[in-house]
Amino acid sequence: MDAMPVAATQASWLTTVRKKKDLQTAAIAPYRSTASHGSIEHITDTDDIPKLAALISDGQLKAYDVALAYIQSAISAQDKTNCLTEILFDDALKRATQLDEIFASTGKTVGPLHGVPMTVKDQFNIKGNDSTLGYVGRSFEPASEDADIVKILKDAGVVFIAKTNLPQSIMWCETENFIFGRTDHPLDSAFTPGGSTGGESALLALRGSMCGFGTDLGGSVRITSHMTGVYGFKPSSERLPYEGTPVSTEGQEHVPSSVGPLARSLASIHLVTKVIIQAEPWRNDPRVQRLPWSEDAYQSIQSTPLTIGLLIDDGVVKVHPSVERVVLDVAAKLESAGHTIVPWTADGHAECIEVMDKYFTADGGEDLRRDIAKSGEPLLPRVQGLVSTQAISVYEYWGLHRRKRAAQRAYLKKWQTIRNPTTGDEVDIILSPVMSHPAVKHRNCEWVGYTKVWNLLDYTALVLPGGRVDAAIDPPASDPTVASYVPRNDLDKRNWSLYDPESSHHMPIGIQLIGRRLEEEKVLGAAKVIESVLGR
Amino acid sequence: MDAMPVAATQASWLTTVRKKKDLQTAAIAPYRSTASHGSIEHITDTDDIPKLAALISDGQLKAYDVALAYIQSAISAQDKTNCLTEILFDDALKRATQLDEIFASTGKTVGPLHGVPMTVKDQFNIKGNDSTLGYVGRSFEPASEDADIVKILKDAGVVFIAKTNLPQSIMWCETENFIFGRTDHPLDSAFTPGGSTGGESALLALRGSMCGFGTDLGGSVRITSHMTGVYGFKPSSERLPYEGTPVSTEGQEHVPSSVGPLARSLASIHLVTKVIIQAEPWRNDPRVQRLPWSEDAYQSIQSTPLTIGLLIDDGVVKVHPSVERVVLDVAAKLESAGHTIVPWTADGHAECIEVMDKYFTADGGEDLRRDIAKSGEPLLPRVQGLVSTQAISVYEYWGLHRRKRAAQRAYLKKWQTIRNPTTGDEVDIILSPVMSHPAVKHRNCEWVGYTKVWNLLDYTALVLPGGRVDAAIDPPASDPTVASYVPRNDLDKRNWSLYDPESSHHMPIGIQLIGRRLEEEKVLGAAKVIESVLGR
Repeated sequence: MDAMPVAATQASWLTTVRKKKDLQTAAIAPYRSTASHGSIEHITDTDDIPKLAALISDGQLKAYDVALAYIQSAISAQDKTNCLTEILFDDALKRATQLDEIFASTGKTVGPLHGVPMTVKDQFNIKGNDSTLGYVGRSFEPASEDADIVKILKDAGVVFIAKTNLPQSIMWCETENFIFGRTDHPLDSAFTPGGSTGGESALLALRGSMCGFGTDLGGSVRITSHMTGVYGFKPSSERLPYEGTPVSTEGQEHVPSSVGPLARSLASIHLVTKVIIQAEPWRNDPRVQRLPWSEDAYQSIQSTPLTIGLLIDDGVVKVHPSVERVVLDVAAKLESAGHTIVPWTADGHAECIEVMDKYFTADGGEDLRRDIAKSGEPLLPRVQGLVSTQAISVYEYWGLHRRKRAAQRAYLKKWQTIRNPTTGDEVDIILSPVMSHPAVKHRNCEWVGYTKVWNLLDYTALVLPGGRVDAAIDPPASDPTVASYVPRNDLDKRNWSLYDPESSHHMPIGIQLIGRRLEEEKVLGAAKVIESVLGR
Repeated sequence: MDAMPVAATQASWLTTVRKKKDLQTAAIAPYRSTASHGSIEHITDTDDIPKLAALISDGQLKAYDVALAYIQSAISAQDKTNCLTEILFDDALKRATQLDEIFASTGKTVGPLHGVPMTVKDQFNIKGNDSTLGYVGRSFEPASEDADIVKILKDAGVVFIAKTNLPQSIMWCETENFIFGRTDHPLDSAFTPGGSTGGESALLALRGSMCGFGTDLGGSVRITSHMTGVYGFKPSSERLPYEGTPVSTEGQEHVPSSVGPLARSLASIHLVTKVIIQAEPWRNDPRVQRLPWSEDAYQSIQSTPLTIGLLIDDGVVKVHPSVERVVLDVAAKLESAGHTIVPWTADGHAECIEVMDKYFTADGGEDLRRDIAKSGEPLLPRVQGLVSTQAISVYEYWGLHRRKRAAQRAYLKKWQTIRNPTTGDEVDIILSPVMSHPAVKHRNCEWVGYTKVWNLLDYTALVLPGGRVDAAIDPPASDPTVASYVPRNDLDKRNWSLYDPESSHHMPIGIQLIGRRLEEEKVLGAAKVIESVLGR
C-alpha cells in the first residue's frame, strides 16, 4: 500500500477520513479474536452457491458458522489487499442467528439463498451505512433504506457481511480513493485487482465472500473478474434493478451502467441472476424490463453446437501474447468439441467508443467537481482528466444520442451479417479477450476498449476464468516475436511495454462471452457449454 | 379550411409549397375518374382487419379491388378534411395487383395482412417519399428506405395507399402546417380532429384506411382517436420499432415517443400489434425490447373479474360534463358486469408534467429553430412558444433525469398501494378520460394532461370509443350546475369556456385504458372484456 497523500495543512477532509478508518478498525477488531471453528476452511472451500445453500438447507451447516467463517476470511483478505469499506459483521451474525432460528423452528429456509454470505461494492445502499462512491464528501451520509437488489437478496436469505472498495468517482479501472486507500491484487501487492469493482474481486479471489455485486459502465465488473480469476457478469442495464444504488454522473443513463454479480463459480452467477429476475424487480424499479426469466432460452442454447464469433484484436490495442494464447486455446478446444468458430471483426467499435467518451464528459465534469468540492479532497490523476473537460449543449447531447442509436443499429446489422459458413446460422455468442493485458502494476490500467463497447451497445457480457500467465510458455518480452512488434499508436505502445510474463507469472486471464441486448439466459447457457468443454 | 398565410414577398418556401401541392393534386387526379366497382361501399364497411384479411384470403375479395375502394374513399376524405400528404395510389395498385397474382399462382397469402390497405402519418419513412414532419424545409428529401415498421407491415402483405397530415414540428395537439395546410374534423370543418396524428384519425373516421400508424409523445395517437371516434393505441415506447421514423427534437428520447396504430376496431389494433411484435423488431431496432408477444398475458386477464382504477379528474383541468358522463357510464356498466371500480388519484401527475415540459424545451428550441430556418417558413403560434425558451445545461439535464426516475418509481409504489378493497388485489388497469373536452374548434386544444402523464411514465394506454356528446342529455352551458363552476386556474377556465354541447352535438368521446410499462397484452385483453361489456 502506498502511503495516503497528506495535505500541507490539516484539512477537514483528513479528519473525516480518520474517523471513517477508525470506525472500520473498531468494527473489525472484535472478530480478530473470535475462536475459529474447525470447519471454517472447509466452509469457504465451497465455491458454488447452490452447494452451500444445500448444505445449509440440509441442516449440515448453520448460517451462523458460515457467516463467521466468511467474516474471518474477509478479515484476512482485508489485511492482505485492503478490499473492505463498511463492515457489517455485527448485523451479519445477528441475521445469521435469526435465519438459523427460523430454520430450526419451521424446518424451512426463508428463500433459495438462505444463509449465503455476500458483499456489495460501496455503492449499493444498505440501510444505516454509507455509500461513498469513493468520495470523502459522501462519508457519514448513511442510506435511509436498502437498494432494491439488496432487499431482494435479503428476502432470499442472503447475509451481507461487508461493502467493498472502489475508486474515487467510480470512473476508473483501478481501485483507489482518499477514504479507504488503495486495494491491492491478492497475488501481488504491487499489482492492481482492476476497478472499479476491485475491492469485490480481491475479496472473492481470497474466498472472503460467496458472491458480490458491482456495477459496470465500461467494464468494472468484468475487468476486475478477469484480473483476479473470478466470474463476473454484466447483464444488459435494464435486467437487474439499479434503484437505491447511487452512481457518479447520476442521470447520465445514455451510456447505461449495469448491476451485475461476481462470484467464484458459474453456478453461483446463474442462481443469483435467476433469483433476482424471478423476484420481478420491474414492480419497483421503473428502469427494469418486464422480462421474466426464460428457462427455455437458457436450456435451448445448450442443446445444439454453438456458432461462436472470435474477436481477438480490436484494431486499436493488440492483446498481450499471454492473453492471446489463453483465448485462442479456449477457441481451439471449442472447435475440437464440435462448435464452430467464425472470425468476428471490430467494425463499429471505434464509433461506439468515441460516442461514449463524449457522454462521460458531456457536463464538462460538473457532476464530479461538485462531489469533490463537498470535502475538498484532492483528485486522482484519472479523475483530474474527467473534470477538466468542456461541457456540450443539450442540442449537441441529443445529437450524440442519434449517433448512439445509429451505432447500435449498425451493430445489429453486423450481427446478422457474420454467419456460420456451413449452416448459415447467425453467431450465438462472441468470444473475446477482456483486456489487452492481465493484472498490471498500479496506475497502469488504461485501455478498456474490449469491455466498454458492450456498454454502449448494452449487450450481455460474461467473464469466465480462461487461464493464467505462464512464464514457461509465454514468450519473454525480449523474444524477437514480441520485441519486433510495431505499435499502432501510443495506447498500443504503452500496453505493449507492460508485457512481462515473468513479473506477472500465474496472474489470471479471463475470457469474455458476449450476447446481444437482454440475452442473459442465452449467454449463461452458452457459458455452461463452454465450462463443460473446459472440463469444469 | 383557412386560406394559406401568404408572405409579403414571394418567399421561396411558398414555391416549395406550391410544388408539393401541385404534385399531390396530380397524383390524386387520375383516380377521381376511376369507375367505381359496385362492391366499394361494401368493402369499406368492414372495420375489422381480421375479417377483411379473411375475405381476401378466402378469395372473396381481390387486393386490387380493396385498394381501389380505399383509394376512392381516401379521396373523399381528403376533399372533406384535407387529411392526406404523400399520395401512394400508383404504387398501392401495383402492389395489390402483385399480391393478387401471388395468391392466384400459389393459393397462398404473403402474410396475415395480405391486401390490407393502410396509411401512416407523414413521419414514417416510405422509400422515395418525403417525411416532412410538417416542415416545409423537409420537402423534396425523399427517404432512401422504408421505416422498420413499414417494412414489417409490407412483408405481412399491407398495401400502403397514402401518408397523412400532422402539425408543423409535430409538437401540437392539432393538425396544421404550411405545406399541406390544416386538417378538419370529419363531422364539422370548424372543428379540429386533434393532433398530431390528426390526418390519420380524420381519414380513418371516414373509412379511408383500415389502419394507420401515428406517434405519441404527449397524446397524439390517443387525442386524435378520441376526437374522431376511432381506436388508438400507445404502447410503451420500446415495444414497436421507431427506426426510420424521423421526429422533432430527435435524440430527446427521455420523454419517449411511441409508435402506435389507429384503427376502426379493437380486433384491428390487436392483430397489427401482434403481427409486428411477432416479427421480432428488436433484431433490427436497438430501441425495441426483446419481449415476445405473450398470449398468456392477453388471455389470462380476460378470465377473471377486473379491478379497475377510475381517474375522473386530474385536479388541474376538470373534464366537461359530457366527458364525465361517458366515462362514468362505462364505469357503471363495468361494475354491473361484476368488475370492481376503485377510485384512482392524480397523485404524482403534476410532477410528471412539470418534468416532461422541461425536457421538451431543454435545448432552448434549437432543434425546431433549425428546421424552421431551412425554409424560412413562418411559425405556428404553438411552435413559437416552443422555440422561445431557455436552454439548460447537460448537468441540469441529468438532474431532470433523476427527477424523472423518482417520479416513475413513486408511480410504481402508488400502483402497489391502491387496492381492490374486497380481494386486496392490485388494480389491473386504469380507466380515465382522454381529454377534458371532445373535439373543439380549431386552435383551442391546450391541456393534454390526461394523456401526457402516461408518456413520461412510458405506460401502455389505449383509447376506445366511449360515447358521444348528446345535447339532449348533457346540460347546456347555461345550466346552473355548469355555469356555477369556479375554475381552479386559467387553463381550467379556458377549458370550461369551451363547453358547448349544442355546437359539439354528436362529437365522439373516447375512454382511455392504462396499464403499466410493457403491459400491452394485458391492456389489449382488458379492452376486449370492456368491449364485451359495452355490447360490442
